[in-house]
Amino acid sequence: MKIKEFSEMVKGSLLGDPDIELTGVAGLHDAREGEITFLASARHLRDLRASKASAVIVREAVEGLGIAQVLVSNPYRAFAAAIRCFHPQEAVTPQEGPSSVAATARLGRNVTVFPFVYISDGASIGDGSVVYPGSFIGRNAVIGRGCVIHPNVTIREDCAIGDRVTIHAGTVIGSDGFGYVFDEGSHHKIPQVGRVVIGDDVEIGANVSVDRATLGETVIAKGTKIDNLVQIAHNVRIGEHSIVVAQVGISGSSELGSHVTLAGQVGIADHTTIESGTIMGARSGTMGGFIKKDVYLGAPPMPHREFMKTQALFMKLPELSKKIKELEARLHHLEKEEHKE
Amino acid sequence: MKIKEFSEMVKGSLLGDPDIELTGVAGLHDAREGEITFLASARHLRDLRASKASAVIVREAVEGLGIAQVLVSNPYRAFAAAIRCFHPQEAVTPQEGPSSVAATARLGRNVTVFPFVYISDGASIGDGSVVYPGSFIGRNAVIGRGCVIHPNVTIREDCAIGDRVTIHAGTVIGSDGFGYVFDEGSHHKIPQVGRVVIGDDVEIGANVSVDRATLGETVIAKGTKIDNLVQIAHNVRIGEHSIVVAQVGISGSSELGSHVTLAGQVGIADHTTIESGTIMGARSGTMGGFIKKDVYLGAPPMPHREFMKTQALFMKLPELSKKIKELEARLHHLEKEEHKE
Amino acid sequence: MKIKEFSEMVKGSLLGDPDIELTGVAGLHDAREGEITFLASARHLRDLRASKASAVIVREAVEGLGIAQVLVSNPYRAFAAAIRCFHPQEAVTPQEGPSSVAATARLGRNVTVFPFVYISDGASIGDGSVVYPGSFIGRNAVIGRGCVIHPNVTIREDCAIGDRVTIHAGTVIGSDGFGYVFDEGSHHKIPQVGRVVIGDDVEIGANVSVDRATLGETVIAKGTKIDNLVQIAHNVRIGEHSIVVAQVGISGSSELGSHVTLAGQVGIADHTTIESGTIMGARSGTMGGFIKKDVYLGAPPMPHREFMKTQALFMKLPELSKKIKELEARLHHLEKEEHKE
Repeated sequence: MKIKEFSEMVKGSLLGDPDIELTGVAGLHDAREGEITFLASARHLRDLRASKASAVIVREAVEGLGIAQVLVSNPYRAFAAAIRCFHPQEAVTPQEGPSSVAATARLGRNVTVFPFVYISDGASIGDGSVVYPGSFIGRNAVIGRGCVIHPNVTIREDCAIGDRVTIHAGTVIGSDGFGYVFDEGSHHKIPQVGRVVIGDDVEIGANVSVDRATLGETVIAKGTKIDNLVQIAHNVRIGEHSIVVAQVGISGSSELGSHVTLAGQVGIADHTTIESGTIMGARSGTMGGFIKKDVYLGAPPMPHREFMKTQALFMKLPELSKKIKELEARLHHLEKEEHKE
Repeated sequence: MKIKEFSEMVKGSLLGDPDIELTGVAGLHDAREGEITFLASARHLRDLRASKASAVIVREAVEGLGIAQVLVSNPYRAFAAAIRCFHPQEAVTPQEGPSSVAATARLGRNVTVFPFVYISDGASIGDGSVVYPGSFIGRNAVIGRGCVIHPNVTIREDCAIGDRVTIHAGTVIGSDGFGYVFDEGSHHKIPQVGRVVIGDDVEIGANVSVDRATLGETVIAKGTKIDNLVQIAHNVRIGEHSIVVAQVGISGSSELGSHVTLAGQVGIADHTTIESGTIMGARSGTMGGFIKKDVYLGAPPMPHREFMKTQALFMKLPELSKKIKELEARLHHLEKEEHKE
Repeated sequence: MKIKEFSEMVKGSLLGDPDIELTGVAGLHDAREGEITFLASARHLRDLRASKASAVIVREAVEGLGIAQVLVSNPYRAFAAAIRCFHPQEAVTPQEGPSSVAATARLGRNVTVFPFVYISDGASIGDGSVVYPGSFIGRNAVIGRGCVIHPNVTIREDCAIGDRVTIHAGTVIGSDGFGYVFDEGSHHKIPQVGRVVIGDDVEIGANVSVDRATLGETVIAKGTKIDNLVQIAHNVRIGEHSIVVAQVGISGSSELGSHVTLAGQVGIADHTTIESGTIMGARSGTMGGFIKKDVYLGAPPMPHREFMKTQALFMKLPELSKKIKELEARLHHLEKEEHKE
């Protein structure tokens, strides 16, 4: 691919020889001759000058750089396009082998069902979707168009999944919510008869579990991205375009707005409401209630600057404790003097 | 269903028109005309008065309520019964497709084995149990009566599971415990040749892992309920009717009594013993030793009131630190005065 | 097996009757007559004297012990050998049932492929490896010799796995890294086109997820052992002979040296570098940067002695706060006296 073609594709402006032949894409450090790289931030300018890349994607022209430059408003996004360019997705063609598709299941056009997939009564799968080996689609489950269901995924009955949704291997959608009533010395199950509804363009990582609602719906709205090993409990509602990083746990009936970010290992207690745009730092946690838009750390959560200050003082507790002892000694001394007078 | 039939079913006393036709069940906020709801606590009385439900399950009669009331000692349990009433479990009938059941496996009456299930030599499955697609039952594993094994579950060799046990999708029972001996610069595996024993009426969530014992047994006693993504290490013993919430990790050889509750993301260090009736709050953790019955928070765990007080002071560390500086200045001033005299 | 045979096998020195017939192996408490046990540390000497075992593996001869002793430099390792002796691994012979192996896949000698396994185009599996039911091997994935792939494992395209690697059930190798660029109000996927490379003698627990690199490789070097439910993000590199305990999360591009230990539920932020030999205690966490060799607790991590001291003071905050109030009152009193003069 010539760089001028790439530049046109990402609607960039090109500085330098338009006929450079691009052979690949790589980070600043790893790029070799012929490859295109990108400048994420001005902090990496020195690395860029040292890079062996033949071209770079930048936001603004860099002076005195010996290589071609593609100017775009969001270099990282153009870099993503470059990766896809040089690593096109291969068509998937399933091998021979048995699958089990119910007579009452509706499959759209160009649906790919691999061997060892089980598609239950009344399920429907939209045009162009792919279901990899070992996945299970429950009764009356609905999967939209252009979805990718990786191997060994379980999608339970009645769940509804939008268009262009990717679900990674081992993930479970629609397992029972964790609800029991304690009576006469033991726990009695609250039947979990709701479902899970997942919006368009959602991506869900590997070995995630999303529980169905007790009654009603557990909802993950469109554009939200969920990392691996995340727990989403019954009746949780996550707004649009949110980010949920690995190993987060969201307890029952909590509601997240849109564009919320939960960093790794965050814990959200049940019945927490989180305002749109909120960022919860890694390992922070809530104890219920309303969390207004801010950047938080700690559990219970504190605005992050406050937390950093407080945490720094925590780390100085031995010093503080020593100082208090000193003050006490000095005070004791003064009191004795006072007494003498 | 007429309300008088429902009331009889849950052994309640009925106030109001016995011939009301119930059409469904819902929470206070969501209930519509024709539906029955329930009052969990007097705090929600105002919501009850505003509810559109045609009937309510309560512990004690509510004055001046325009709708029918079903009085029972445990309204939440009767509500669970109502959910099951209006959402009866559908019979499962597997489609055509290959499964692989060893000639030496023993299957009880009315056992349902779905396609793509593998049942190994010497395994046995009790009357009325269901094994969903993609599940694996290892050599000589024993599964009791009335069990539900959801899709893509792995139950390794020799493990024993009681009656009426439900195991959700993606869960692994009997994986090797994490045991190595370090010698000559590398880790050598301790063979994990024990098994897992699970009592009657246990429920285990999705994507859980329960390791087999090194020697002997990892035990989950009857009636215990385990949520999603929980880790239970080798030789752990969990008593009866305990509750283990999502993403908890229990390390090797720890022992929990009965009626213990571990809230979400709790971490139990190895060789911890937890007395019956103990409640460990969300994200609390132990460092081994004996934990006597109480309600705990924090890691290491503190009685929860103490923890709340201490945590509140943590959040005030900047204030405390400022106060110490003030005291120091005032003391310094006094010392100078003293010196002058 | 006679004890003299066992002693020879582990290259030990035998004290006592060489003709004792060993019938099994067990811990100090559980051992019965005829069984061999081991002494992990001198602390358990009293338990050893009370044990019903007929023989014991020890480092140094124990005086006045009525039973046979096998002296070795590492008793725990010899104990592991004893377990394997009395619990030999049974040969696995798959039952009848369909698998799907691509015509272009290369299988070595004595490879065992169970029913419901899917092996994709161009994949290769080395001599003597076993792939259990429900596992998926992606396009061009390479699996070495003597590997065990437990049920329902997913190994995605292009990933490379060394010799004698064990992967437990439900684990996912090569899922997409969690990478998006935010633009125009939504998250756009960064294609994840790298792979995962796993060294020889690695063992990976159940329901783990290891993400493929964005570009390049996610690496787990030889001899490293990973417990259940661990999250390893894209472009992470873990050195040789490290230990990663259950529910740890390692974020993108972090690098661990060799012989690193991460205890349970540790969280490693992205772009953290951890020096060889470092030990991160349970639930500790990093916030990026360079972690030099030490034993850490807390998040951000503190050398463990310091942390223990600081944490003890945290637990005494109510006392400290009270003391500060007292000091204030006493100071106030002195100030008044001073003022009077």
